[in-house]
Amino acid sequence: MKAMLIAVSLSLCAIPAAAGEDSRQTAALLRDRALSDPVAWDLLDSLTTEIGPRPVGSEAMTRAKEWAVAKLRALGFENVEAVPFDKANAWFRGEESAEITAPYRRSLAILGLGAGVPTPPEGIEAEIALIDSLAELEALPDGSLAGRIAVLNWRFYAAQGEAGYRVASRGRMVGPSIAATKGASAFLLRSAGTSPARRAHTGITRYADGVPRIPAAALSHPDADLLERLVSRGTKVRLRLQLESRTIPTATAWNVTGELRGREAPEEVVVVGGHLDSWDVSESAADDAAGVAITVAAARLIAELPRRPRRTIRVALWGSEETGDSGAAFATHYRDEIDRIILAGESDLGAGRIYRIACSADAWSNPEHQALAATLAPIGIVVDRAPAAFGGVDVEELRKAGVPVVRMSQDSTDYFTIHHSADDTLNRIDRAALQQNVAAWAAVLFTIAEGTVDLRAGAARP
Amino acid sequence: MKAMLIAVSLSLCAIPAAAGEDSRQTAALLRDRALSDPVAWDLLDSLTTEIGPRPVGSEAMTRAKEWAVAKLRALGFENVEAVPFDKANAWFRGEESAEITAPYRRSLAILGLGAGVPTPPEGIEAEIALIDSLAELEALPDGSLAGRIAVLNWRFYAAQGEAGYRVASRGRMVGPSIAATKGASAFLLRSAGTSPARRAHTGITRYADGVPRIPAAALSHPDADLLERLVSRGTKVRLRLQLESRTIPTATAWNVTGELRGREAPEEVVVVGGHLDSWDVSESAADDAAGVAITVAAARLIAELPRRPRRTIRVALWGSEETGDSGAAFATHYRDEIDRIILAGESDLGAGRIYRIACSADAWSNPEHQALAATLAPIGIVVDRAPAAFGGVDVEELRKAGVPVVRMSQDSTDYFTIHHSADDTLNRIDRAALQQNVAAWAAVLFTIAEGTVDLRAGAARP
Repeated sequence: MKAMLIAVSLSLCAIPAAAGEDSRQTAALLRDRALSDPVAWDLLDSLTTEIGPRPVGSEAMTRAKEWAVAKLRALGFENVEAVPFDKANAWFRGEESAEITAPYRRSLAILGLGAGVPTPPEGIEAEIALIDSLAELEALPDGSLAGRIAVLNWRFYAAQGEAGYRVASRGRMVGPSIAATKGASAFLLRSAGTSPARRAHTGITRYADGVPRIPAAALSHPDADLLERLVSRGTKVRLRLQLESRTIPTATAWNVTGELRGREAPEEVVVVGGHLDSWDVSESAADDAAGVAITVAAARLIAELPRRPRRTIRVALWGSEETGDSGAAFATHYRDEIDRIILAGESDLGAGRIYRIACSADAWSNPEHQALAATLAPIGIVVDRAPAAFGGVDVEELRKAGVPVVRMSQDSTDYFTIHHSADDTLNRIDRAALQQNVAAWAAVLFTIAEGTVDLRAGAARP
Repeated sequence: MKAMLIAVSLSLCAIPAAAGEDSRQTAALLRDRALSDPVAWDLLDSLTTEIGPRPVGSEAMTRAKEWAVAKLRALGFENVEAVPFDKANAWFRGEESAEITAPYRRSLAILGLGAGVPTPPEGIEAEIALIDSLAELEALPDGSLAGRIAVLNWRFYAAQGEAGYRVASRGRMVGPSIAATKGASAFLLRSAGTSPARRAHTGITRYADGVPRIPAAALSHPDADLLERLVSRGTKVRLRLQLESRTIPTATAWNVTGELRGREAPEEVVVVGGHLDSWDVSESAADDAAGVAITVAAARLIAELPRRPRRTIRVALWGSEETGDSGAAFATHYRDEIDRIILAGESDLGAGRIYRIACSADAWSNPEHQALAATLAPIGIVVDRAPAAFGGVDVEELRKAGVPVVRMSQDSTDYFTIHHSADDTLNRIDRAALQQNVAAWAAVLFTIAEGTVDLRAGAARP
């Protein structure tokens, strides 16, 4: 309590009261405007309707890049550019199918994993081995899965949110190579998602070096349930899996950026954005048209203020999050000014309501940020004083280079039911929640961009 | 109030107090046992897991018939038989796809309608005409859809339940032929279901005589939303539709029946059941493995009583509800005893809780049935005194022949989100609600079978 009183006293000394009050009022004004501002929804509608699925290397991604440049310009951003980079090993899905062949024939709902190798054209047919967890898979003796299709049956429940996804997606990432070391000829995963529908959730896998690369796909929950029910009867289940895919050595991708140049310290930059690329199986409204729409709409509200904030706000629409590399390309492109990035953040958890904000730096003892916390409280956001360990895939390289990152925790109960699936569509987005996200980001962006605090040092600048 | 007192007094005169009380207690006992009886769930699990999708004419339908015979025998039914009948024009789905070809290429989630004709192998490509209702479609001038794919965009909301389905499915039934009279080359329907997923809901269509038969498919709601969003921008949208299907002139189907022969009046029969056939796109847990499981489990609870009820209970598992004809085959097979069927009913609205019971005959003034109403009240079922106009597709021929039918209204909010789609899977069934259905049917079956009322006459038999 004593510490808090001291902090408050210090704040009154360190910042001109009028300026601080003015900044706080403006943040609150932005927050309130955002709650009825149509721009985010319009952007979301536009990207999903006019562009559609936009995987790296596709014709649609080129259209998405043009779309982003045009939108940022039309909304008043400066220095809009699409910065190209080489994306190695761009992956494209082909025809895919799976069916039970014994005890009777029955088709299964699957989706191949990104970066996964194809099966032979005739497919792979084998008896399945049902394995309940990655730990169980790891514990199997080498060779014990010879001639089998390994089915990793780990369950991810919606209430587990991000924590559940971390565990489930690890199975997707490392499962195929571990199964291969045990001799499996192919790998199926109970989807690292929570849809009760016959919808598989795709996502990237990462083959380990020196291990045979086996075909890998995700299975819908009801189809995994079926395998479980059959196996529980003592039935030997055989499957046939057919996966087509192709990989091109290099594709061009783009990080599209636009700025609101700062009025006093334009060399100091706040970076925020979402990713423009998506999986190929849906219009990808939540992942991540929502993040694009939220962050662009938040910055655009600031662009409409009578004057620019002190620092520069740079909106970044990253071009290869799903299969990786856009964050690294961004960090490389801005390597000479990386130490002037005050804060970076990415909106990439759909459009569910934000309930918590955290920062990798020690932000909350500063009175400017305490004022921000007070601005966010009425829209249901609490401050987490524990340092954020992660700010999003596309700002991870920046974070590793010492840039402070902000992390907004969102209600992801619905998110993981549609995530990386054919069901990630506009009708699943809650418009009020989307606008609450815009409100939060607008208040955060403005407060940091108008502020004087150097979060990297954890203290006010001289 | 006075009328009710008189009715109660009459009841005490008309029926031996002890027998009536005994029957009422037994009905309540059956109801309570049903709420914890595992048989319905086990049957549902077995049919969905061990048989899977079971369209008429398929190998799976043959297995389903054998399954039904074996289960009815194992559960203690008598006179178990699979009565074959000829099913004309059995329809089988082939490969299906649809994609937007302009303003850009994008795949759409569709399902061909049952009985629909195929497209040419190269598909049909044309600009769409979006039509908001059947009335609007009907009002179009002849020839006005020439060279177009008609898209009937009528929306069915979950809260509308059965009433909504009646309207939406009418569009599915008659829409293709009406569109053909206006010159359309193909017909798409915003699905007559309520799934927010990229899941189309199939179902039968009925071509009119003397009108060109055009290919017809259902579109998922998000895909119909997309067409709507594109058209609202003034964009001309072109689609390509490819549908394969084949029809065989005659397939063998079966109505599987089993009986609990009545101890006093075995010639008087209560008919109840669900349908064994299903659409081809899922294990069809709700439609209608649930109805099979509910009615068999209800009758089987009665089979476990120390003595058989007065009348015969005949469980019927109909073999061609989805594309029609099993009800007619049943009525034909039992034509000589049709006037001895006291009551018929079908459970074919999934496993959602029953909230209302109605009868096509005047049932509720009779004290036996007032006792039944009291037995059903504690599990949340009210009596609708208005005569039921429908008791299920498979008892419709019986109803037309003068057989009284019972109709249970169920909560169908969830039902129509999975109905006739790939998402009709076991994990969508609420076990407690399934067992409430068993409780209701057990109480109804027992009360009618043990009773003395001739519902056809609306009065107690001499």
